[in-house]
Amino acid sequence: MHISKLFIPLLKETPSEAKIKSHQLMLRAGMIKQSSTGIYSWLPLGFKIMKKIEQIVREEQDKIGAQELLMPTIQSAEIWKESGRYEDYGEEMLRIKDRQGKELLYGPTNEELITEIFRASIKSYKSLPQILYHIQWKFRDELRPRFGVMRCKEFFMKDAYSFDLSDEKAKISYNKMFFAYLNTFKRLGLTAIPMAAETGPIGGDLSHEFVILADTGESKIYSDKRIFDIDITSHNDSEKSIKDLRKKYDEYYAVTDDKFRKEDFEKKVKKENQLMTKGIEVGHIFYFGDKYSKPLKCSVDLQDGKKIDVKMGSYGIGVSRLVGAIIEAKFNNNIMKWPESVSPFDVALIPSLQKNDKSNLLKAEKIYKSLKESNIDVLIDDTDEHLSAKFKKFDLIGIPYQIIIGTKSTNDKFEFKEVNGKTETLSLSEIKDKLLKKRNLN
Amino acid sequence: MHISKLFIPLLKETPSEAKIKSHQLMLRAGMIKQSSTGIYSWLPLGFKIMKKIEQIVREEQDKIGAQELLMPTIQSAEIWKESGRYEDYGEEMLRIKDRQGKELLYGPTNEELITEIFRASIKSYKSLPQILYHIQWKFRDELRPRFGVMRCKEFFMKDAYSFDLSDEKAKISYNKMFFAYLNTFKRLGLTAIPMAAETGPIGGDLSHEFVILADTGESKIYSDKRIFDIDITSHNDSEKSIKDLRKKYDEYYAVTDDKFRKEDFEKKVKKENQLMTKGIEVGHIFYFGDKYSKPLKCSVDLQDGKKIDVKMGSYGIGVSRLVGAIIEAKFNNNIMKWPESVSPFDVALIPSLQKNDKSNLLKAEKIYKSLKESNIDVLIDDTDEHLSAKFKKFDLIGIPYQIIIGTKSTNDKFEFKEVNGKTETLSLSEIKDKLLKKRNLN
Repeated sequence: MHISKLFIPLLKETPSEAKIKSHQLMLRAGMIKQSSTGIYSWLPLGFKIMKKIEQIVREEQDKIGAQELLMPTIQSAEIWKESGRYEDYGEEMLRIKDRQGKELLYGPTNEELITEIFRASIKSYKSLPQILYHIQWKFRDELRPRFGVMRCKEFFMKDAYSFDLSDEKAKISYNKMFFAYLNTFKRLGLTAIPMAAETGPIGGDLSHEFVILADTGESKIYSDKRIFDIDITSHNDSEKSIKDLRKKYDEYYAVTDDKFRKEDFEKKVKKENQLMTKGIEVGHIFYFGDKYSKPLKCSVDLQDGKKIDVKMGSYGIGVSRLVGAIIEAKFNNNIMKWPESVSPFDVALIPSLQKNDKSNLLKAEKIYKSLKESNIDVLIDDTDEHLSAKFKKFDLIGIPYQIIIGTKSTNDKFEFKEVNGKTETLSLSEIKDKLLKKRNLN
Repeated sequence: MHISKLFIPLLKETPSEAKIKSHQLMLRAGMIKQSSTGIYSWLPLGFKIMKKIEQIVREEQDKIGAQELLMPTIQSAEIWKESGRYEDYGEEMLRIKDRQGKELLYGPTNEELITEIFRASIKSYKSLPQILYHIQWKFRDELRPRFGVMRCKEFFMKDAYSFDLSDEKAKISYNKMFFAYLNTFKRLGLTAIPMAAETGPIGGDLSHEFVILADTGESKIYSDKRIFDIDITSHNDSEKSIKDLRKKYDEYYAVTDDKFRKEDFEKKVKKENQLMTKGIEVGHIFYFGDKYSKPLKCSVDLQDGKKIDVKMGSYGIGVSRLVGAIIEAKFNNNIMKWPESVSPFDVALIPSLQKNDKSNLLKAEKIYKSLKESNIDVLIDDTDEHLSAKFKKFDLIGIPYQIIIGTKSTNDKFEFKEVNGKTETLSLSEIKDKLLKKRNLN
């Protein structure tokens, strides 16, 4: 893509309404545009990044055998009355009446609807276990939306639901999802820590928030810092391996404010391992048994002819929120560096252009063509701005690698820079090898 | 995928509410489930097909240089008041008030919002032309939704918008889209004919509906049947080639009811070439100049310092609707055959299972594994139903190729059937070659 053609309305100044760095960057880099309070359009750059995140989330769900479907954004109020949540949910639920006066709502979550789909479709124990998920827009009528996509009204989310015959079996589904989440966040370039969270009246140990560290996070975190060193790559998706992995995490103390107790922290974590910091919640997994299946009468026939309410869990990842969360984690000293797996382009191609001298541009266009032929997604800066202005722009765009066609490049060797890393002088084929290798690792 | 694990609630009977065959098939094959009047959930089978259609639509938009972004589903009423359409639009617009009483709506279309994005982002003639598109859920509060996804309330649509400096330049954008549409429908296995449509007060020849033939279609079509023989593959995306292609289409008479005049038809089309039939509209492209840019003050600076309202066109494809439209065109004699490009699986693997004899299943599982290793997406029927019941099921699922492990298969040769086509006895590697070749053509 040529930057002169890219629809990327960059802002020179940081808009005053943006209080945190992800919101600032997303507006300045032309990733989003607010259309009304707490509701955003995703412009090409932001959209491309969000789609890459969505695809990684999807692949990791598919890997554990979850099946994708899609529930609509607009739901009938009826099933929410059946579950008892219609009145309870509060004003954050966007309630709608259609032209015939029927009560509808914009789904803030989908426990009711998925339960209704399941009960209409599955009748026998033989069809269980099942994990179903979708990635869909949701709406919460926040009174004070803020922080850009981190706390907005219309947001993009993956929510999965598991269906099992017993608490014991449900634990297997839960653990699979636990594993999928760790892999998902790892592929997104994030270190997310599963933190024991409130389970409500059900109890047990089947509720975790996945939190990434960021100074601007809204959650306080208290943990044993060794939890960050757990290596998930030595585990596979077998029941036993995942169970072992969970055990490793359970060994280390890690909680957010609501579960924090000073005495426990002091007792369980040695002084030198204590980590008190802030984080951002990027996922939540939660087992709730028959909380919805019971009132909604979602049961299956057992082998002996009896019926049993299915046991359910729900598993969320905020996909649009993750775009902001990754920025909070990776945007430092005014320089953004996207993890390669979600970067909007593989590499930036930045020729230094002098007036009346098109030679660098011609050289860059040749490289551009060659990279495209190798299936490398490259953004070329074909504008006649000064090199310093170009660099500032790319600090915002955050592509992790740059090829700079300036004084340090010769005819067949080019300046190749990793953002926040080293600069080398490489031939085009060396550059290609490097980029393709990086990509294969993701 | 094993069919025993697939979330595919098949129905034995045709639900009485389904009046047309696409609606009937989609319910019977477990592709969709109605959640409330005119609002559907897309179950895994239907979802997968819709996603493939979406991806083809996307790729053809990208090929002509259109850039993808995403506008939200919920819009503020304000810009619709600016354009003057808020009152005009009628009751099909789902109007919403949030908790603070602010007037919102669920976008039925996006001319206003895209114009607002464009005017805030682009200031100079240098940035034109531009084509922006998104693929998003839309809502129309139909009084009497019917025919399943063909006329429902919440639907998935690609809409693109072009921005140019003059009517003359806009024609180039329009023609590009005309070309993209022909290619899109061709890849979807459809013959879509562009039919001159009403242009409204603007006039000119820049409004086309793309219609596919189907007995159940809602539009009457009058055409010279030779228009179906135009070969688009001999054209490329250069301005001249597309112009020539448009000329070819313009040569033949082809209109829907609203433009039909008997005298013209008789005069322009020889008796033996006259075709009167029915069709389904699957796309609409339309140039409307400054209809929205003027009231919304979307202008750019010209080189001489003057300002000009940008000239816009809009280009829609009903993505969810296409799922139904393809069925209307391809579901005949109770047998569905998806075009390979959008089929939910590449091939069905159907072993005949006898009680107490697992040999065919074991054989099938081996083939399954081998196909998966070659990246062929296969659905294996591992249930113990009779072969005849299995065939009935696959008549609904519509996968175009079947490998049948029964009496006609030996140890290393297998019955390979093309739905509605011939049956051969082939080795596994011959089958793979065939399937991979088919895929590469799409």
